Amino acid sequence: MAQQFFSRRNIQFMLYEVLQAEDLCNYEYFQDHSRDTFELIIDTISKLGTGVMYPVFQDMDSNPPVYADGIARVHPVVRTYMQECGAGGWINPGASYEFGGQQLPSVINTVITFIMGAANYSLSAYPQLTAGAANLLVNFGSKELQDLYLKPMLAGQWQGTMALTEPNAGSSLADVKTSAEDSGQGYFLIKGQKIFITGGSTDATDNTVHMMLARIKGAPSGVKGISLFLVPKLYIDEAGNLQANDIFCTGIEHKLGYKGCPACQLSMGDNGSCRGYLIGEPHKGLAYMFQMMNEERVNVGIGATSKATAAYYAALEYAQQRLQGRKLNDKNPESPQIAIINHADIKRMLMFQRAIAEGALALGLQVSKYIDLVKAGKEPENNELLVDFLVPVVKTYPSEMGILATSAAIQCLGGYGYCKDFPVEQYYRDIRIDPIHEGTTGIQGQDLLGRKVIMKKGQAYHLFKEELIKTINTAVEINNLKPAAKILEEAMTRVDQVTSHLLQAASQGDTGRFLSDASLYLEMMGILTIGWQWLLQGMAACSALNSNNSSVDKDFYEGKIITMQYYFDYEMPRINTMCTILTRNEGFMSDIPLEVFL
Amino acid sequence: MAQQFFSRRNIQFMLYEVLQAEDLCNYEYFQDHSRDTFELIIDTISKLGTGVMYPVFQDMDSNPPVYADGIARVHPVVRTYMQECGAGGWINPGASYEFGGQQLPSVINTVITFIMGAANYSLSAYPQLTAGAANLLVNFGSKELQDLYLKPMLAGQWQGTMALTEPNAGSSLADVKTSAEDSGQGYFLIKGQKIFITGGSTDATDNTVHMMLARIKGAPSGVKGISLFLVPKLYIDEAGNLQANDIFCTGIEHKLGYKGCPACQLSMGDNGSCRGYLIGEPHKGLAYMFQMMNEERVNVGIGATSKATAAYYAALEYAQQRLQGRKLNDKNPESPQIAIINHADIKRMLMFQRAIAEGALALGLQVSKYIDLVKAGKEPENNELLVDFLVPVVKTYPSEMGILATSAAIQCLGGYGYCKDFPVEQYYRDIRIDPIHEGTTGIQGQDLLGRKVIMKKGQAYHLFKEELIKTINTAVEINNLKPAAKILEEAMTRVDQVTSHLLQAASQGDTGRFLSDASLYLEMMGILTIGWQWLLQGMAACSALNSNNSSVDKDFYEGKIITMQYYFDYEMPRINTMCTILTRNEGFMSDIPLEVFL
Repeated sequence: MAQQFFSRRNIQFMLYEVLQAEDLCNYEYFQDHSRDTFELIIDTISKLGTGVMYPVFQDMDSNPPVYADGIARVHPVVRTYMQECGAGGWINPGASYEFGGQQLPSVINTVITFIMGAANYSLSAYPQLTAGAANLLVNFGSKELQDLYLKPMLAGQWQGTMALTEPNAGSSLADVKTSAEDSGQGYFLIKGQKIFITGGSTDATDNTVHMMLARIKGAPSGVKGISLFLVPKLYIDEAGNLQANDIFCTGIEHKLGYKGCPACQLSMGDNGSCRGYLIGEPHKGLAYMFQMMNEERVNVGIGATSKATAAYYAALEYAQQRLQGRKLNDKNPESPQIAIINHADIKRMLMFQRAIAEGALALGLQVSKYIDLVKAGKEPENNELLVDFLVPVVKTYPSEMGILATSAAIQCLGGYGYCKDFPVEQYYRDIRIDPIHEGTTGIQGQDLLGRKVIMKKGQAYHLFKEELIKTINTAVEINNLKPAAKILEEAMTRVDQVTSHLLQAASQGDTGRFLSDASLYLEMMGILTIGWQWLLQGMAACSALNSNNSSVDKDFYEGKIITMQYYFDYEMPRINTMCTILTRNEGFMSDIPLEVFL
Repeated sequence: MAQQFFSRRNIQFMLYEVLQAEDLCNYEYFQDHSRDTFELIIDTISKLGTGVMYPVFQDMDSNPPVYADGIARVHPVVRTYMQECGAGGWINPGASYEFGGQQLPSVINTVITFIMGAANYSLSAYPQLTAGAANLLVNFGSKELQDLYLKPMLAGQWQGTMALTEPNAGSSLADVKTSAEDSGQGYFLIKGQKIFITGGSTDATDNTVHMMLARIKGAPSGVKGISLFLVPKLYIDEAGNLQANDIFCTGIEHKLGYKGCPACQLSMGDNGSCRGYLIGEPHKGLAYMFQMMNEERVNVGIGATSKATAAYYAALEYAQQRLQGRKLNDKNPESPQIAIINHADIKRMLMFQRAIAEGALALGLQVSKYIDLVKAGKEPENNELLVDFLVPVVKTYPSEMGILATSAAIQCLGGYGYCKDFPVEQYYRDIRIDPIHEGTTGIQGQDLLGRKVIMKKGQAYHLFKEELIKTINTAVEINNLKPAAKILEEAMTRVDQVTSHLLQAASQGDTGRFLSDASLYLEMMGILTIGWQWLLQGMAACSALNSNNSSVDKDFYEGKIITMQYYFDYEMPRINTMCTILTRNEGFMSDIPLEVFL
C-alpha cells in the first residue's frame, strides 16, 4: 500500500487559490461556515480516510460480500463506518438544517466525497447512496414519510438505495415493469424484480430503504407512467413497530471490481404483500429521480477522480523508490541503477495521470461551486444551466480517462503493477464501473449533444463558452500563459464550428444521424473543458509564484505550471482528431447495415 | 460464454485472399505443405480450441493455481492439454524436421497461436513457452543437451520456461545477478533468484526445463557478461536417471488476470548444488535470447489479438441478442425494444473492436510471412529487416489497443460487462499483461526509434516505407479505395517528416532527449502500419466483390470495406495528434525536474 492517496495541498490550492471557496460563506445560506470550519471538516475526513477506510481497502476487495439467506454479508467495517458517518454527520452534510444537514457548501461536500473515494471507494458508496435516497425523501417525500424514515438513515442505522434497474430496463428506464397497485390503505402493493441494486440488502445496517421506480397499474406507458416509491425492507406499521416487508434479495453479482459493495437482485411481492409508499405525485417518478441525478453523476465523476488520484500516488511512490536501469546516455553498466522516475517514459505516464486526476478534480469542484451559487441564490438560473451543461462531462471525463490513468499507473509498476501486492490493479478494476453506472457514456453523450447543447436555444452552451472566454481573456495577458490561452481559444473555436455543423445536420430532422457520434462529441467537450480547468489552475499558480514562496510551495506551483503545459502540449492536440471525425462522418454509423457484422 | 471466439472465414480471407499463403509451398522448405494441409491443421486446432480449451476458459480463471510445497498446483486440464499438444505435434510445429517439427510456415503457426489464444490464453501459454525454450535449445544448444532434453519437451511431458527476470532486473537485464560457477564436471553451479517465471514449477508436467540467464563468475558487468543456461528441475545424471536439482519454487504471484498460468518465484543453489548447463558460448546469453525474442514478441501481439478478437465476438453476440431502447426517432414507448446493435454508439464500439482485432491479426500474419520468406531463402536480408522493424509494432499495437478494445467490449454489455457471468471482464484482465511482458511498451518504443529506425543507415525503415508505397500505388488505382490510399499516403509523409525531425535532434547527441517520447513514436507508427494492413484487406475485398459471390460472402467483403473505412475515418486521424506532439515537444519530458512531482 502506498503512503499517500490524495494531496491535501492540492485541495487547499483548489479551494482557496483557484475557487475562492471561502467567499461562499458571505452568502446567508452558508454563513455559519468559514475557511476554519472547512479545514476542520477536511481534517476529520482525512483522519477517517487514513485511519478507518484506507487500511481495509484491499481487504474488502479480497473478501467481498457473500450472499446467504436473503442478505449480503459484507465486511464488518461497513457497520462501524456507517455508524461513524452517522455520528459525525457525514451522510448528508449538504442538506439544510431543517433536514438534519449542516448546510455545507457542495465544494466541501465534494472534497469529502473525493477523500473518502480515494481512501476506499466501495466503503464510501454506502453513505453516499444513503444520502442520495435521503435527498429524494427530503425533496419530494411527505412530512409523514420524512418523520418516519429520515432520521435513522442520516444516523447511519438504515441503508438507502436507488432502485431503478430491471433485467430489461437498464439504460431504457421507459421500460420499467415493476408494478404498484393502490391498496387503499395508505400504501401500494409492489410487484417485480430489480437488479444491480447497490447495497440492496446487507447485514451492515438494521434496515434498508429503497427509492424505487414502479408503474402504477393503468399508468401511461413509457417514462410518463413511472412513479417513485419508498419501499423499506422493514416497514413501520401503524403502531410504530418494524415489520418485515415482502421484498427479498435473491442473489448478488460477482463483479470485476468495486467488490466491497454488493450489487443485489431484489424480488418484490412474491407473496403479494410488498408495501411501497408513494413519493410525491403519481407518474412523476422519473422526473424526481432526474432532479437528483445531477448530484449522483457528479459523485460518479468524483469517485473516478478519487481512484485515478490514489493510483497516481501509488505509481509516484513506486517510481521514486524503484531502482531500474540508467540514463540512456550512461553506458557504464557498473554505475548504480537509478530511480525509474528519472526515465522520460515514466515521467510522461505520471504527468498523464496527474493531468487527468487534478484536471478532473478541478472540474468537479467547479461544478460544485456552481451548485453552491444556485443554493446561495446568486444568478441561480444561469448557474443551474452551467451545472446541467457540465454534468455529462464531469461524469464522463474522469470515468473514461481515469481508466487510462489507472492503466498508466499499472504500467509504471511493470510486472508488479499486474500483481495484487500493489494496489494499482484494484484501482484499475474498481474504476471500470464508472463509465457504466448512473448512465453509461453513451447516455451521457446523448444527454450533452441531444439535450444540453440545444436546450433553451443553446443558452447553457452559450454560458459555458462565456466562462471559457472570460478565462482566456485573463490568461492571455499573463506572459507564461499566453500560449496555453491561445491553444484553448483555437480549440474552442473549432469545437464551436463542429457544434454548428452538427446542429445544421440536426435541423434536417434525423435525430439518429445527428446523435450517432454523440459519445465522441462528449469526448471532445471533455478535452476542451479540462483544458479550461488547467488554464485556471495555471493562473492561480502564476499568481502565487509572483509572491514569495517557500521552496516546497515553489515546487508545487511549478509542478502545476508544468502539468498544465503537459496538458496543452500532449492532451489538447487530441481535440483536432475529434473535430475531424465529427465533421467528416455524420451518419456513417447509423448507415452501417447490420448484416456486415460478422 | 459466447458461441464464437474467432472467425474461420476471416482466417481464410487473410491467408488465401490477402497473403497468398499457399504460394509459400512453392519454396523447397515448405514443399510438403499445401492449402489442404493448412486447412486440416486449422480444423484440428479449431476442434482443440472449441472442445478442450474454451470450455475451461472461465474455470481456469476462477480456480487459479495454488502454491504448495514448492509447486504450483494448476488446473487438471493443463496436463491433458500438454499431452494432446505433444501427441499432435503442436508444441513447435514450425521447427525443422531434424528437430522434431513439421516445417510449418510461420503464418500457419501464427494462426494456431491465434486460435489457441482466443480459446484460452492461459492454457495456450504452456506449450508456447515450451516451444520458446525448445527453440533456444535447437538453435544454440549442444547436440548432447538436445538429445537429452528436447524430446520430452516437444512431447508435452516437460514444461519449458524463459527465466530472465530477477527482483532487481526486470526491464534492465544488464543487472542480472544470478551467478554461475564452473564445477569442472560438465555443468555450472547456479545461485540466485528469479521472479515472474511463467509456468516455472507446476504439477502439470513431470519436469521443468528453464532457459536461464546467469553471470559466470568473473564475467564482464552489464549485458556483455550474461550467459544462457539450461537449468532443469530434474537433471539427467551420468547414468541417465532423473535427479532432483537444487532449484525451488518459493511462491507464486497473485495476478490481475492471466490467472490460469502461474508466475513463479524461483530460488537456485540454496544448497550449493544447482546444476546449470551452458548453452552455446559464455557471455552470449542475451544475444541468443534476443535472437529468439522476435518470435516471442510476435506471439505476445498475437495473444493480445486473440483476446481482443474473442471479446469482440462476445460483445457482438450480446449486441445482437440484447433488446434495449428504441431508435432515437421512435418516440412510441409501446413499440417493442430493439437489439442494441441497432444503436449507433454500439455499432461504433463494435467497429472499433473489429478494426483493432482484424487489423492486428493482419499485421501479425504479415510479419509471419516475412519470417517465412527468410526461412525460404527469398530475399532473406530484406525480409529479416522488415521483421526486425515491425516487431515492436506487432507486439505493442495489439497489446495497447487491445486493452481499449476489450474495454469497449465491456461497455457494449453495460452492467453485465462488469460481471463474471460474461467473459468480457476476463479478457479485459487477461490482456493487461501484454504491454508488460516480453519487454514493456516503453522498451519497445526505444527499440523502434532508438535501434530499428536507424539501423543499417535506415535501411529497415526504408524497406518498410517501400512496402507501404507499393500498396498505396496499387490501391490508388481502385476507385473505392482511392480516398483511403490518399489518407495513408499523407499519413506516411507526415510520419516521415516527424522521423526526420527526430533524427536531426538525435544527431545533436542527446539520446535521452531523442528518445523521450519514443513510446508515442511507436504509437504513431502503429496507427500507420495498421492503416496499411487495412488498405491491403480493402484491396482483397474489392477484388472479391468484383467476382460473383454468395450473399454471405458479399456481407463479409462489404463488412471488410466498411471496417476499413471506419479505420481511415475514425482511427487514422489520431496520427495527426501524434505528429503534432512529437514535433513540438522533444526534451519536454527529460527536462522536467523531479522535485515538481508532488
